[in-house]
Amino acid sequence: MRAPVELAKAYRLLNHGPTVLVTSAHAGHRNVMAAAWNSGLDFSPAKVLVVIDKNTWTRELVEGSGVFGLNVPSRALAQATLSVGSISGRAMPEGDKFSRFGLETFPATAIDVPLVEGCVAWLECRVIDEPHNQQAYDLFIGEVVAAWADSRVFSNGHWHFTDDDSLRTIHYVAGGNFLSIGESFDVKK
Amino acid sequence: MRAPVELAKAYRLLNHGPTVLVTSAHAGHRNVMAAAWNSGLDFSPAKVLVVIDKNTWTRELVEGSGVFGLNVPSRALAQATLSVGSISGRAMPEGDKFSRFGLETFPATAIDVPLVEGCVAWLECRVIDEPHNQQAYDLFIGEVVAAWADSRVFSNGHWHFTDDDSLRTIHYVAGGNFLSIGESFDVKK
Repeated sequence: MRAPVELAKAYRLLNHGPTVLVTSAHAGHRNVMAAAWNSGLDFSPAKVLVVIDKNTWTRELVEGSGVFGLNVPSRALAQATLSVGSISGRAMPEGDKFSRFGLETFPATAIDVPLVEGCVAWLECRVIDEPHNQQAYDLFIGEVVAAWADSRVFSNGHWHFTDDDSLRTIHYVAGGNFLSIGESFDVKK
Repeated sequence: MRAPVELAKAYRLLNHGPTVLVTSAHAGHRNVMAAAWNSGLDFSPAKVLVVIDKNTWTRELVEGSGVFGLNVPSRALAQATLSVGSISGRAMPEGDKFSRFGLETFPATAIDVPLVEGCVAWLECRVIDEPHNQQAYDLFIGEVVAAWADSRVFSNGHWHFTDDDSLRTIHYVAGGNFLSIGESFDVKK
């Protein structure tokens, strides 16, 4: 059910503003954090941006490896999304945040990061190095080098959520409060 | 029903990823465009980012004035959001995009831009000049200097949408297709 998404349409996986899980790996370590601050940035070559705070372990791993994954979690993963966003993977005595919160992974295809099972879309990204943005704003720009979506809810360049609310994307507000995405509608040009 | 939003919580107006209307004014002209590519960037001082293409008239006005408004439209304004995102205000023989698409405005308080009536939140922003980002990525960073929300759907730092779907925020995908925001839910830390 995981189907490739044309890179020029990868922005559509983020265009409606879901909260994402940022996955990373470097030097034998791997990590996952949540990020509501992300956006599309360009169509072709496809670029996206995400804010990764200096205090996070993800920051070290992404700066070390030059790559990151953006995973779009569905409502079924809301608890895990909040949990991985609430603690650091840096000082974990055993295992990592994936094992601690029961997140299964599969390998990305174009870069060396784990991707999270049960998400509904995935973007594999290479960092476009912009030291000033990274230092001054914690802002990372990535080129999307592969993209995937769960064909049950995204195909032909559009989201088509179903009655199964557990597959809807989640949009964080604050304090454990999320909004899930609602109905689709079309407007004529 | 328009109530001020504490600047340190202004990010919550964008955190769930709504498509926004960017308003601008300079040298006797004013304009409005749509932008799905926006994000929070910092809590305090509150910063946001938005992508404004080089080809847009908004770009000229924002670069001229150094300020912009981000207006969060509700579903009642979906048609207008698509329309103002589909044509340029540059070569309009009479009036402007506001008058053409029936958008009423009111003045911002801290900066000199019009804000759009019928939206559910508004952020008044001063450009933090970053010429490389603007040139290379069409990326504008703004400090939020005032923020407002419609207290029917946002108060005490949280969205509380109602049965009136016309007040829900809208999240653009592509080709005239939007998703409206859905239900709120809470996860325990």
